[in-house]
Amino acid sequence: MSKQVKEPPVRSKITTPTEREIRIERVFDAPRERVWRAFTDPKLVAQWWGRGNKLVIERMEVERGGHWRFVEHSPEGVHGFEGRYREVTPMERIVHTFEWDGMPGHVAIETLTLEDLGDGRTRIVNVSLFHTNEERDGMLHSGMEQGLEQSYAALDRLLAKLS
Amino acid sequence: MSKQVKEPPVRSKITTPTEREIRIERVFDAPRERVWRAFTDPKLVAQWWGRGNKLVIERMEVERGGHWRFVEHSPEGVHGFEGRYREVTPMERIVHTFEWDGMPGHVAIETLTLEDLGDGRTRIVNVSLFHTNEERDGMLHSGMEQGLEQSYAALDRLLAKLS
Repeated sequence: MSKQVKEPPVRSKITTPTEREIRIERVFDAPRERVWRAFTDPKLVAQWWGRGNKLVIERMEVERGGHWRFVEHSPEGVHGFEGRYREVTPMERIVHTFEWDGMPGHVAIETLTLEDLGDGRTRIVNVSLFHTNEERDGMLHSGMEQGLEQSYAALDRLLAKLS
Repeated sequence: MSKQVKEPPVRSKITTPTEREIRIERVFDAPRERVWRAFTDPKLVAQWWGRGNKLVIERMEVERGGHWRFVEHSPEGVHGFEGRYREVTPMERIVHTFEWDGMPGHVAIETLTLEDLGDGRTRIVNVSLFHTNEERDGMLHSGMEQGLEQSYAALDRLLAKLS
């Protein structure tokens, strides 16, 4: 048997810069243009955002003022998510609102930035700002980390396939 | 000529309890049940919310998780507003999000409470919570006070008519 060198799984770095924020940092082994497409093309988003679950993209108007609405069909149930785009700067930055049907009217502002690392990789940073510390903590303790890693692992696989 | 005693116009009391909030207090000369109806029946809302301008109520699902969307047709242009209900407690309290198309993705949480003053009048308190101090100040300096007084004066007239 050959000795296999298995790389450790890539993890996201999750921090809380202020009492109302969650900051997520993650590097993807793909050029920025490809990562941008995976975040903004509904056909591609449908392949990773739902972590392997069926994802119905009811609405995804990637432009300032546009709305988005995704419905995830998981074994545990159906979950709707929605929001609206505040800013879309191609290849660089998307700012949108994020709301889960299970807690309607609780809205976070998500600012996603993409950084070209110059070696074919891309670093993304996603900062979520909540109205209150309690809402931020509610999100932190919702199992978001596990869901996030599953989504990003699916995104890793998609980006490799797109190359 | 008879001497006319003209009452001063009723004004709202607008304060800023924290750096991210605006608090509005106003008394209406009508029982709480009637004020509640004026805030929750689309046919009635259409008669005062737009300050005399045509108001198209595209969506108004007054229940937890429901959406609302109003479009005001003023001489200066067409303005859309929308949001989602977080809480609806009949006669007492409505919590919903508020967003103006002109600044998409900038979302305030509005908490409206109705207090029965016991003498046929009703006090409403509406607290808006913004994500940042800058967004709060943007709203304060948007001419909101004038618009608010126009809306509430129209509501005074509607409440008198409903009696």
